Amino acid sequence: MSVNSFGRLFRFTTWGESHGPALGAVVDGCPPGLELSEGWIQPFLDARRPGQSKFTTQRQEPDAVRILSGVFEGRTTGTPISLMIENVDQRSKDYSDVAKAYRPGHADYAYDAKYGFRDYRGGGRSSARETAARVAAGAVARLAVPEVAILAWVSEIGGDAIDPANFDAAEIRNNPFFCPDASAAVRWEKIVDDARLAGSSVGAVVECMATGVPAGWGAPLYGKLDADLASAMMGINAVKGVEIGDGFAAARLTGEQNADPMRPGRGGPQFLANHAGGIAGGISTGQPVTVRVAFKPTSSILTPQPTVTREGEATEMFTKGRHDPCVGIRGVPVVEAMMALVLADHKLLHRGQCG
Amino acid sequence: MSVNSFGRLFRFTTWGESHGPALGAVVDGCPPGLELSEGWIQPFLDARRPGQSKFTTQRQEPDAVRILSGVFEGRTTGTPISLMIENVDQRSKDYSDVAKAYRPGHADYAYDAKYGFRDYRGGGRSSARETAARVAAGAVARLAVPEVAILAWVSEIGGDAIDPANFDAAEIRNNPFFCPDASAAVRWEKIVDDARLAGSSVGAVVECMATGVPAGWGAPLYGKLDADLASAMMGINAVKGVEIGDGFAAARLTGEQNADPMRPGRGGPQFLANHAGGIAGGISTGQPVTVRVAFKPTSSILTPQPTVTREGEATEMFTKGRHDPCVGIRGVPVVEAMMALVLADHKLLHRGQCG
Amino acid sequence: MSVNSFGRLFRFTTWGESHGPALGAVVDGCPPGLELSEGWIQPFLDARRPGQSKFTTQRQEPDAVRILSGVFEGRTTGTPISLMIENVDQRSKDYSDVAKAYRPGHADYAYDAKYGFRDYRGGGRSSARETAARVAAGAVARLAVPEVAILAWVSEIGGDAIDPANFDAAEIRNNPFFCPDASAAVRWEKIVDDARLAGSSVGAVVECMATGVPAGWGAPLYGKLDADLASAMMGINAVKGVEIGDGFAAARLTGEQNADPMRPGRGGPQFLANHAGGIAGGISTGQPVTVRVAFKPTSSILTPQPTVTREGEATEMFTKGRHDPCVGIRGVPVVEAMMALVLADHKLLHRGQCG
Amino acid sequence: MSVNSFGRLFRFTTWGESHGPALGAVVDGCPPGLELSEGWIQPFLDARRPGQSKFTTQRQEPDAVRILSGVFEGRTTGTPISLMIENVDQRSKDYSDVAKAYRPGHADYAYDAKYGFRDYRGGGRSSARETAARVAAGAVARLAVPEVAILAWVSEIGGDAIDPANFDAAEIRNNPFFCPDASAAVRWEKIVDDARLAGSSVGAVVECMATGVPAGWGAPLYGKLDADLASAMMGINAVKGVEIGDGFAAARLTGEQNADPMRPGRGGPQFLANHAGGIAGGISTGQPVTVRVAFKPTSSILTPQPTVTREGEATEMFTKGRHDPCVGIRGVPVVEAMMALVLADHKLLHRGQCG
Repeated sequence: MSVNSFGRLFRFTTWGESHGPALGAVVDGCPPGLELSEGWIQPFLDARRPGQSKFTTQRQEPDAVRILSGVFEGRTTGTPISLMIENVDQRSKDYSDVAKAYRPGHADYAYDAKYGFRDYRGGGRSSARETAARVAAGAVARLAVPEVAILAWVSEIGGDAIDPANFDAAEIRNNPFFCPDASAAVRWEKIVDDARLAGSSVGAVVECMATGVPAGWGAPLYGKLDADLASAMMGINAVKGVEIGDGFAAARLTGEQNADPMRPGRGGPQFLANHAGGIAGGISTGQPVTVRVAFKPTSSILTPQPTVTREGEATEMFTKGRHDPCVGIRGVPVVEAMMALVLADHKLLHRGQCG
Repeated sequence: MSVNSFGRLFRFTTWGESHGPALGAVVDGCPPGLELSEGWIQPFLDARRPGQSKFTTQRQEPDAVRILSGVFEGRTTGTPISLMIENVDQRSKDYSDVAKAYRPGHADYAYDAKYGFRDYRGGGRSSARETAARVAAGAVARLAVPEVAILAWVSEIGGDAIDPANFDAAEIRNNPFFCPDASAAVRWEKIVDDARLAGSSVGAVVECMATGVPAGWGAPLYGKLDADLASAMMGINAVKGVEIGDGFAAARLTGEQNADPMRPGRGGPQFLANHAGGIAGGISTGQPVTVRVAFKPTSSILTPQPTVTREGEATEMFTKGRHDPCVGIRGVPVVEAMMALVLADHKLLHRGQCG
Repeated sequence: MSVNSFGRLFRFTTWGESHGPALGAVVDGCPPGLELSEGWIQPFLDARRPGQSKFTTQRQEPDAVRILSGVFEGRTTGTPISLMIENVDQRSKDYSDVAKAYRPGHADYAYDAKYGFRDYRGGGRSSARETAARVAAGAVARLAVPEVAILAWVSEIGGDAIDPANFDAAEIRNNPFFCPDASAAVRWEKIVDDARLAGSSVGAVVECMATGVPAGWGAPLYGKLDADLASAMMGINAVKGVEIGDGFAAARLTGEQNADPMRPGRGGPQFLANHAGGIAGGISTGQPVTVRVAFKPTSSILTPQPTVTREGEATEMFTKGRHDPCVGIRGVPVVEAMMALVLADHKLLHRGQCG
Repeated sequence: MSVNSFGRLFRFTTWGESHGPALGAVVDGCPPGLELSEGWIQPFLDARRPGQSKFTTQRQEPDAVRILSGVFEGRTTGTPISLMIENVDQRSKDYSDVAKAYRPGHADYAYDAKYGFRDYRGGGRSSARETAARVAAGAVARLAVPEVAILAWVSEIGGDAIDPANFDAAEIRNNPFFCPDASAAVRWEKIVDDARLAGSSVGAVVECMATGVPAGWGAPLYGKLDADLASAMMGINAVKGVEIGDGFAAARLTGEQNADPMRPGRGGPQFLANHAGGIAGGISTGQPVTVRVAFKPTSSILTPQPTVTREGEATEMFTKGRHDPCVGIRGVPVVEAMMALVLADHKLLHRGQCG
């Protein structure tokens, strides 16, 4: 089976391949009456757009979005919103080696094993290019949760982490790494550029915080807010780990250290800590919802690796072409989009059951 | 909304509270003709059963499962399988303090915020007692994936990790910690007992490996095998982090270090490493599927913590009663069950689309 | 696949066979805070209960419902509500003939073809006994739509229809046929009793009207209110046809005859006719929602019919045992339940998207 | 909520309005490796295309379909198939009257009541124009069930039914009514033309038969084959009734008359009748699956009807513009498409659970 839809009430479906004519998303269940135009969506796509610095892939795509349905006189009608992005720079290159053998670390073998054959041009459906559709859908989702502010950033590249003491949200859009620590951004230039020049790649950690989420969102026990976030984030290309709140660090704390004590506050308790990442029992507590996401290094590298052909013969392979030396960087707008999509869905779900 | 079902084709729904008369699961979509009896399920429940050592809660529950439907003449009929476990040891205690105020770290406040009130007896629906139903459902799921062997263990307690060199699968059931490292198990006795005697608690990391999963399972892009596993594991009580393969460690590797090169093998490529944890592009590769799961320390501790009453007054609270000093230990059978349930679902999904 | 759940936000899952120990329903997504007890549900089950007159099956089942979860201090908690009904009168009879051959008109052959074998005792999962679980779930659903009044009745038995001029709602519970026309009820006594004495059976038409449904419920285009009602009703045992509003009669009208003109009213238009059955474009209009449902004659008859054995040999078969001479009669509470379940779901869905 | 997806494993999502730039469908879960091109889909769209005779709307739409994803080198890849049809003839007309008041019989008021406002141009999302997307998706579905032959026809227009003795499948495409009875087709010319000239409209009944469906498809109890067909058909614009097999006529038969006796056959029983329409207990029996669908007369008529404005003032209204005097005629390819879509889904579902 293929499952290309996500969400329950606020739901989106994506389609499209790296080298097909276009890709897109159909957003269903959006509340009616929200102001929506291409102009609202485009900046989010621009943040994810490739080719903006030497630290990301040099593929040139304008990623111009068109709204084909679901909007009338500038407002959402409550019917499905079809968003389309045309592929422009499907450079006509020679894919015969990718057609013949499996790139290690890529989904080539897995797609062949599942479907019997695959669109091998640029990764086909498994390309991170699809995340453009998520970002477009996520821009719509933000309209459905105006009470929430979502912010993501890169907190670690190639094992080099930011200093939390230097965190400055205003810094995030000031460098090509979505880095909130100006001094770390300087160090990362070298790390990523070294990887790029060596035809290598490095991993990254992306963090995301959503503030303004009211207490009560989440659908236990199998649609918990944290479980849905875990699914949303783990499903992004190259992601291998997800943490809520303290995550794995919580496993090393005692119950006393990990407690989030409360004292009286306005409109609900005031929490004295947020080890839980804003979620208890799968339901938001009113604290900021925090997620950490681990991106592996890009699998496309210039060092040849042993692999096999479709016929099962041994060969070696490296990945030519345009690639991100650190795919986690452009993951930032995608992580934000998935956060928005999960929250929009849970807002509607909660309102549905609890009024 | 509440979502108490999990899975798409192989699907289960659970119900029941900590202190209600019973809890259970309805398993739907199970293939017909599989041999199933209470005797098959019971050992899995026994492994999760409380009160078996001083390192887990002293609540005494036989957790005897009854099959109420879906089995005829010892075989599954393809119709829903209703599994019920009666609660026996709902000790009549005084819950008036829990009724009045919110235990820090628990879901008390979140449930109240969502639903307006809550069954406060023993955590109600948010109690880890519900995981018995998952374990029972998971035992059925194992029948649907006989080609797969699933094994989980605790790899770290209170920050003290096993030595991988000492890993011995046969050791796992030889100690009360599901610990595969005999010497670590000795150390953990003291760690957990100290926490217990201090009225404190410690966290843990559980690892799970599924071998025998053929290449091709997984439903990209929004039903990826890893995304579904992330949802399944993050939804378990007290879980705060999930990793596939190398997880967060992969974010610190280079592309060369993280590669899983291939050479010719029988029935598919032979992989020379498994950083990916057996999943690429959301589809299984035929390698072992590996997951790591972080459990926070039990929130129930004897040290009083600041909190608020339902009326918003400041108070202090500690948790009386019977609790696990390390809730991650009994998470092992639950993690195995969720792995089985996800794999069974994906086996059927794959067969549905691809024959 | 088996699909034993129905609904999207207000969702229920049923389980159980005719001759198993029990059957039940798990209701998920119910709004919290609704007053619910067994005493509320039981009268609906009693209306469906067999053995209350000579015109229905003589199986004696108290159909006593137990609430096992989801209710605390007399109110729904928003968590899954488990309802269980024990089977009491699974008369130990000889099923060897049903085990060997397929009863014409029953699902015996279809179940064998699908699942490879079947629970042949009393029809197993395909028995109309399962509808008790729907009725119990439907009673919960009514609590979620207190603004709606739902009423169903039998309008035709064995081809003999009521006279609409005689319609008297108060009459419906005054006779064993749920007949709103006192004089028709007298005629039906003979029709049904003749069928019963002859070991034959007759069909029936059930009508249902829901008043108080506000305009705006329904989820076009593939969760239209009428489409969901059609699915809900067609899925009831023995149902072969569903009409909304004028149904097939509308196909014989002109556009002028079929128009439902409007004039100004309070809180929305006042309609001058209701050919549409209260639904336009898949969305409720505020008019009464009306459905007609055709029940075939019970397939269990005493006249032997040609059939085949499991081994494919020719044989003849008639159905011994306790059966309804007109299965449509007891369909009335089931039709009401399914109406309530669909409406509750759509109320929550609408509130989720549109606030 | 809006639900614009249909199906479980073989699933499609549609989008688009009557007067937007385009409409389309995303087909997800299609088996890989099937030969698919625009050339396969186009003839099905052509059969539904408006403006081909004076008996249907004069809107001129080429309805040329484009495949934007999911097909590589002429075969389906198992990933989502995006189908797009541009709207060409959105005649720029004056919609100010439709914007101000509600057309009786249309969904205008219902959409406003639900969403607060609506795209009033040509019915917006509620326009039958959307069925083009279903037909395109249905063409793909046919590829997934090559063992099945699907045929639909009009059996009654304006109350004038075909004579079953004249049934000739070859005749269906020989007249503008999809009429299998040549002499009825002659009579219908006058009926429909009279309605057209009078600015009136007439209803119709469409029948559909699927042969070659093997025994075993269907997902009881809430995904029964007949329930899914009922939902699929009732959800088509203007449909008010659905029958499986004998439908409402079965309610007038005795058990003996309604029996479908069996005798030994090849590869399963041979049935001596098919009152059940090929479905028992919600599962196909191997007999032809037969459905009857009632289409109301087109609501758009030239005779003014009383109605109200958005502000609640009384007014009168008739529908200008291009409309089908008998919307049921063009329903034939849509009914066939929905049949194919339901069957494809159930084939995959069955294979998923039962192998």
